[in-house]
Amino acid sequence: MALYENLKVFSGNAHRKLAKDICRYLGIPLGECEVFKFSNDNTFVRIRENIRQQDVFLVQPIAFPVNDSIMELLIMIDAAKRASAGRITAVVPYFAYARSDKKDQPRVPITARLVANLIETAGADRVLTLELHAGQIQGFFNIPLDELSAIPSLAHHFRNRKVKNNTVIVATDAGDAKRARNMANRLDAHLAIVEKVRIGNQERVEAATLIGDVRDKTAIIVDDEIGTGGTVIATADTIRSHGARDIYCYAAHPVLAGKAPEILENSVIKELVVTDSLPVPPSKMGTKTSVISVAPMLGEAIHRIHSGSSVGAMFDLDSA
Amino acid sequence: MALYENLKVFSGNAHRKLAKDICRYLGIPLGECEVFKFSNDNTFVRIRENIRQQDVFLVQPIAFPVNDSIMELLIMIDAAKRASAGRITAVVPYFAYARSDKKDQPRVPITARLVANLIETAGADRVLTLELHAGQIQGFFNIPLDELSAIPSLAHHFRNRKVKNNTVIVATDAGDAKRARNMANRLDAHLAIVEKVRIGNQERVEAATLIGDVRDKTAIIVDDEIGTGGTVIATADTIRSHGARDIYCYAAHPVLAGKAPEILENSVIKELVVTDSLPVPPSKMGTKTSVISVAPMLGEAIHRIHSGSSVGAMFDLDSA
Amino acid sequence: MALYENLKVFSGNAHRKLAKDICRYLGIPLGECEVFKFSNDNTFVRIRENIRQQDVFLVQPIAFPVNDSIMELLIMIDAAKRASAGRITAVVPYFAYARSDKKDQPRVPITARLVANLIETAGADRVLTLELHAGQIQGFFNIPLDELSAIPSLAHHFRNRKVKNNTVIVATDAGDAKRARNMANRLDAHLAIVEKVRIGNQERVEAATLIGDVRDKTAIIVDDEIGTGGTVIATADTIRSHGARDIYCYAAHPVLAGKAPEILENSVIKELVVTDSLPVPPSKMGTKTSVISVAPMLGEAIHRIHSGSSVGAMFDLDSA
Amino acid sequence: MALYENLKVFSGNAHRKLAKDICRYLGIPLGECEVFKFSNDNTFVRIRENIRQQDVFLVQPIAFPVNDSIMELLIMIDAAKRASAGRITAVVPYFAYARSDKKDQPRVPITARLVANLIETAGADRVLTLELHAGQIQGFFNIPLDELSAIPSLAHHFRNRKVKNNTVIVATDAGDAKRARNMANRLDAHLAIVEKVRIGNQERVEAATLIGDVRDKTAIIVDDEIGTGGTVIATADTIRSHGARDIYCYAAHPVLAGKAPEILENSVIKELVVTDSLPVPPSKMGTKTSVISVAPMLGEAIHRIHSGSSVGAMFDLDSA
Amino acid sequence: MALYENLKVFSGNAHRKLAKDICRYLGIPLGECEVFKFSNDNTFVRIRENIRQQDVFLVQPIAFPVNDSIMELLIMIDAAKRASAGRITAVVPYFAYARSDKKDQPRVPITARLVANLIETAGADRVLTLELHAGQIQGFFNIPLDELSAIPSLAHHFRNRKVKNNTVIVATDAGDAKRARNMANRLDAHLAIVEKVRIGNQERVEAATLIGDVRDKTAIIVDDEIGTGGTVIATADTIRSHGARDIYCYAAHPVLAGKAPEILENSVIKELVVTDSLPVPPSKMGTKTSVISVAPMLGEAIHRIHSGSSVGAMFDLDSA
Amino acid sequence: MALYENLKVFSGNAHRKLAKDICRYLGIPLGECEVFKFSNDNTFVRIRENIRQQDVFLVQPIAFPVNDSIMELLIMIDAAKRASAGRITAVVPYFAYARSDKKDQPRVPITARLVANLIETAGADRVLTLELHAGQIQGFFNIPLDELSAIPSLAHHFRNRKVKNNTVIVATDAGDAKRARNMANRLDAHLAIVEKVRIGNQERVEAATLIGDVRDKTAIIVDDEIGTGGTVIATADTIRSHGARDIYCYAAHPVLAGKAPEILENSVIKELVVTDSLPVPPSKMGTKTSVISVAPMLGEAIHRIHSGSSVGAMFDLDSA
Repeated sequence: MALYENLKVFSGNAHRKLAKDICRYLGIPLGECEVFKFSNDNTFVRIRENIRQQDVFLVQPIAFPVNDSIMELLIMIDAAKRASAGRITAVVPYFAYARSDKKDQPRVPITARLVANLIETAGADRVLTLELHAGQIQGFFNIPLDELSAIPSLAHHFRNRKVKNNTVIVATDAGDAKRARNMANRLDAHLAIVEKVRIGNQERVEAATLIGDVRDKTAIIVDDEIGTGGTVIATADTIRSHGARDIYCYAAHPVLAGKAPEILENSVIKELVVTDSLPVPPSKMGTKTSVISVAPMLGEAIHRIHSGSSVGAMFDLDSA
Repeated sequence: MALYENLKVFSGNAHRKLAKDICRYLGIPLGECEVFKFSNDNTFVRIRENIRQQDVFLVQPIAFPVNDSIMELLIMIDAAKRASAGRITAVVPYFAYARSDKKDQPRVPITARLVANLIETAGADRVLTLELHAGQIQGFFNIPLDELSAIPSLAHHFRNRKVKNNTVIVATDAGDAKRARNMANRLDAHLAIVEKVRIGNQERVEAATLIGDVRDKTAIIVDDEIGTGGTVIATADTIRSHGARDIYCYAAHPVLAGKAPEILENSVIKELVVTDSLPVPPSKMGTKTSVISVAPMLGEAIHRIHSGSSVGAMFDLDSA
Repeated sequence: MALYENLKVFSGNAHRKLAKDICRYLGIPLGECEVFKFSNDNTFVRIRENIRQQDVFLVQPIAFPVNDSIMELLIMIDAAKRASAGRITAVVPYFAYARSDKKDQPRVPITARLVANLIETAGADRVLTLELHAGQIQGFFNIPLDELSAIPSLAHHFRNRKVKNNTVIVATDAGDAKRARNMANRLDAHLAIVEKVRIGNQERVEAATLIGDVRDKTAIIVDDEIGTGGTVIATADTIRSHGARDIYCYAAHPVLAGKAPEILENSVIKELVVTDSLPVPPSKMGTKTSVISVAPMLGEAIHRIHSGSSVGAMFDLDSA
Repeated sequence: MALYENLKVFSGNAHRKLAKDICRYLGIPLGECEVFKFSNDNTFVRIRENIRQQDVFLVQPIAFPVNDSIMELLIMIDAAKRASAGRITAVVPYFAYARSDKKDQPRVPITARLVANLIETAGADRVLTLELHAGQIQGFFNIPLDELSAIPSLAHHFRNRKVKNNTVIVATDAGDAKRARNMANRLDAHLAIVEKVRIGNQERVEAATLIGDVRDKTAIIVDDEIGTGGTVIATADTIRSHGARDIYCYAAHPVLAGKAPEILENSVIKELVVTDSLPVPPSKMGTKTSVISVAPMLGEAIHRIHSGSSVGAMFDLDSA
Repeated sequence: MALYENLKVFSGNAHRKLAKDICRYLGIPLGECEVFKFSNDNTFVRIRENIRQQDVFLVQPIAFPVNDSIMELLIMIDAAKRASAGRITAVVPYFAYARSDKKDQPRVPITARLVANLIETAGADRVLTLELHAGQIQGFFNIPLDELSAIPSLAHHFRNRKVKNNTVIVATDAGDAKRARNMANRLDAHLAIVEKVRIGNQERVEAATLIGDVRDKTAIIVDDEIGTGGTVIATADTIRSHGARDIYCYAAHPVLAGKAPEILENSVIKELVVTDSLPVPPSKMGTKTSVISVAPMLGEAIHRIHSGSSVGAMFDLDSA
Repeated sequence: MALYENLKVFSGNAHRKLAKDICRYLGIPLGECEVFKFSNDNTFVRIRENIRQQDVFLVQPIAFPVNDSIMELLIMIDAAKRASAGRITAVVPYFAYARSDKKDQPRVPITARLVANLIETAGADRVLTLELHAGQIQGFFNIPLDELSAIPSLAHHFRNRKVKNNTVIVATDAGDAKRARNMANRLDAHLAIVEKVRIGNQERVEAATLIGDVRDKTAIIVDDEIGTGGTVIATADTIRSHGARDIYCYAAHPVLAGKAPEILENSVIKELVVTDSLPVPPSKMGTKTSVISVAPMLGEAIHRIHSGSSVGAMFDLDSA
């Protein structure tokens, strides 16, 4: 049963291609909506078709430029609310600011909670997201939220590799190895962790020690996102020096900041597998990069949210 | 009486010079606060001194880049709130998005209200601003707001010009001549209006007709802000063709988008007078531009808010 | 598609005739609802038919007596909410307190925002209104609001007059000529403005100057409402003394306070055209007054809100 | 200790005399504040002295005309909030709509809760009230509320009568005899109840039966308010027919609607004792009416709220 | 018309039998939902079937252990909200803490309002309850609430007794005789009241006086709940000593704390009639106790809420 | 500077000894407050001293019985709010439900966020807590929160042991090794992780593998809390079988559910070090258990919150 008769998908400027791919999966056209900046740098939004009482999905990962992506999303939500949308779902496949999720030093913000509040204040009724940095960020929202996981897709991609050697999954942070562990469980692999030390607020990454055993194994470094690539390279170098063979790197979100593409291209990493939760411009696509599309998964989730069927069932969790 | 013993002023990146000038007026140092972007484009804030129970003022006009300025402000508020500030005042001398203050076409947002909501949601206790595009924007806030006016300073600046001719104040929009009228009242001048027609959401400005009389008069075009300069130039050309003599342009907020500085430099306008509510980089300072600082006025208002004395009394409004 | 199967319209005491006319347009009976005062002056409301899960419209312009009209509206909303209405739309064709929309002197309220908050607090889900004093009042609401315009109807009424002379539209306030400009655009007429000076909080209106040209033209004074009539009469006298020929006065809302009917009857104004957004008792209907009913427009908007079709499309705005 | 240095008291139009009497008790002048209606029936408020960070008390019983009193109060709160008052206490000695405190028939409002919400929404920080119709109305507020009782003053007044006979306290409603019981406890008197039947929403009161014994006793009918007087007269007649001797009537709130003064004057009631929680115009003061002022009690409570000392201690409740 | 296609009923641990009986009435299976405590005493909830967009009713009287029942309810609501339920109705046949509904001494809470706030905060959309201690508790909720009455069922039960003698209904508290009066009206009986005195916060009940006449009558003591039984026994003894014949006791909620079952068994009371709003374990069922099931009434109300038909009509109130 | 003159500390029943120890540190008496259950299982609270405008701290870890502890806390907050406390800080040294901080299966609640909402709804102004299960729970609150760490105290305790061997810190969960890493950093120790697998919602713990090296080292198992002890014992057995020497276990919160004390007593663990964030009854104190008091740390933090000095400075974080 659908509570709202019409399903409509609109896109901001963060990742129009993903929105189109989602619409292709759903078999509907992308909704018409202007989103641009006036010459005074003010973002403007105009939805160009009637959405009264309809089921509106706004696709907008918080991509570069981050603050523009957030403000576009908030303004789109405001426009949809005032245009009498029946229900507004913010589809945010990449949720930036997710690492600002606690006060680990005095007088810093918890920006991830702030952004959750902003999305609720603007008027979103629900959120659909993908592979959050920490599961607790779900709890930053008071409105219903569905979080999809990229791990099954990434694991499936690797299984097709038909690797012969033993495999070890390598986490890049002792404080956050849950994602690596889930991957290890899916691939019946072992787990290892490389401990780094981060100093100050600038992102310099110090040399790291290995916990666990990687010798003569195929290694998959698993992280939620690839930023500057510094953490991943340090991890790769560490495990190579401890005897790891082929080294893969699997991450959901290709932030690929600064020189990351170049650094990764020249690294010991054999393949970088990411999703298209964020746009990767051709200039950032190295020869080693594979992109797995999450459009079908997002499209299916939107379909299920719209029709009231279980989203959890997509992940073989008990049928609902 | 001060409810909160210590007054502290912090600045984001939008206009640090203004914040410093305000602090100079107040005789206190600018508070220490890091506000920068990580390489993944996430804005980060850290307040570097204790602010528990103190009276915190965050100076941040919504300057270019607009969305970054807003997000910096919101994140600073969140950090101050979680650091147990006693009271948080957002000092926003220029409030962008102010022209998005109503639905004048279907399915557009009211972004000015949205931004007001965001500031309240982040945790600001009050707002101090200057020369809003429309007075009604005060009502977009539920928290106390003090709006200062730049008109008295601009009028005073002109009186020092000791102009001999008759003076006429020229508004650039029949729908919004209130500011020009206030200026006319202060200078005992007449009022004229130039009617423009704006088409679509792109800012092309069509030719305009004059209402009122400007022949052989000294004219001051008054507006709240100078954006692309298009409106002002069209107005100046129109009144020149109707016989106006010296043409001045007075505006509170120097947005000066795109080629505005160049266009204004080459125009019939004799002098452009603005305030420093927004930063004007040297590259945008033409030979005709005068800048009146609002730092003393903002500093005095902050002092009065802190000490509980009347802000209205600054403007010769009845003593309070 | 209608989200809610049954559409029901109820009326307070402010303007039952308008509510009945709306129901006639919609082809449904006016809902049964007692709204009266006990002998202790307490307003009481009882809705006399089941409204669970239904689409409830409460018709109540904020007519004289103003505070009673507001309280009746709020209490009706509370009753409807507690009676489990599916959706509650406050239909407020005249929104009083709209001129209290900013702090233009120290320590005054922004009552229009307050009333918006009260309506939301009582539990309204949306608002339908007509010709607000200022468009920004839309932004005083966080809930969806549809504002209808009386200008097209008024312009159409005049076109039927088939006036030969040139026409000029006259605004009564340089600070608020937007409405007059819209009328001028629709009638291909010129624009003129009469500047008045208002002193203190009592409504004495001082002599006024004319900006623009009215000589030998047919003039239509346009305002959002006619209160005491003082402003309109002063404007009419001013333009007559500058040579205007036939003088019409068009306004949406016939507040007609105090001696306004008598004053207007004896004035140079040839015809006063208003809508029935407010009730005009026969005793206030002068020989010059024409009333255009907004019931069909409101009825059509209610029909569209209920069925989820575009309200903007009623005004030839792009189809939605 | 006072959190806020200055204590200021303002009054709406509901009962300026009471506000002045309170100020006399406190030894401060009544604050300057305009509260009037424009000719368009819109209530306007302007506070005429600086109140930043001060401890503001707004005295406004919800007197006749009831809805005007409420709206004045709400608008004063809004003005005080926007004028940066430190703390706002609504002093509402009589809380109208208190009998609309539950849904005792389908689809009626709970107006007392609605009014509580409105006061909170407008921005009051706390409430001071007197002798609520039902104690549960305290719980309609989420903000701190102090309720004073008039019972001790009324009991003290009677003790001075030095009545010889046995005394019986008579409640007018079996469903609400708590107030009478408290009076009985204070005067070591017996309790009797007269049962009336109320039909429909019109206030016709049907004949009533007596529960308990009144023969040859001095009787005091106790109620929270005197409305039309119908209930009280019916009660008095009933107990007289059962042999009661002198009959007094004690009530906190002199609503005295319609012909109540005349009816009471001509009744078997010997003395009517009320407080000045509501204004009693001389025309309503019959020869039998005594008025006990609550100004000292309210003044003392305001003093204690301001200085942070116990209000409960005023009533010999354990010292706090 | 049903807004939500599927109706689902879930139960916490407070009273699963009642939930099952309700489902039997409705002809649907009880929804699958785990509600248990981990070994660390943390309550855990998992709803085991898809509830997206469905009409969810959570049956949970606030039974012993009271705080566990509340927390279970709140956690179930949170789970249902995050699982995207279409609408959540908390079905709370017994609302504990209802006697903490006012501040009758300094610095006590109003816990009934607090619990109402908690239920709203958790995310309930509406409440269905039965025979509240005081009707005003309805007003503690801002969300729609339906209160059912047990009085008609209890009266019907007694009518079947075909008692010959005159009947008198006895209230146990002069401050709260409304329920007894309603029963008296239904049975055309007289009313009497027994006055008790309660001292301190410990529930010792002092000897009591009778108001009214019970001699040679059949007496029904009516209360909303039976707690320790102390009040009821004291009342029964008092009226027996004044000559009452057969004494019945009718109450909606069988709290039956401590030794209540034993005390009642050995008392002069002939029959105790209660509902199954709370579970009565066999060990507490004395030989005199009759239980009337409210499951059909609750089931019918749920059916009507779901289908949008009138709940008030169940009680012969005017058809809605 | 103290905003509020008087500092007062009250305690619920969860851990009165800790509250008294805190008061001893602060040199003030514990505030007088009754917190008990009526015979009907309703929790009742009465604060027995004036707290108007004072700085109130309510000490209540969410100890066994968990739901009673929460409800006591909420009711105390409500009482303090309605008694006009100046500021209310919930001091919650142990925050139960912290492991319910995300939806890791369909249709489960996020109870930790729910409890945060409940505390805010009840009226707390701020929270002081200790060693949260996950730092992100800070972000579940919108009000300021100070989290203290027990790690420095535990590390200091171990340093006094003057252990000769190499030390390794052992985390019990690959997904949550942050706390262990912090301890390792403070003690210049290595890190190892034992991977367990948890199945279903029942807490059975499956056999686990070791990541890292423990042979011939002194091992400290670090966790935030000790529940049933199952995880810790499995971890200890695993590392013993891999050659660890002396095995210590350090945890902040001694939940010690079920047979935990007995199991730990008979285990290979040499010493169990916990804090007194939760009460440990003598019957649960095994011969191996050491308790470090957090009362001085909490007392110092309360002092700093009250006086407006930096709490972060307590932990050698930069001075504020």
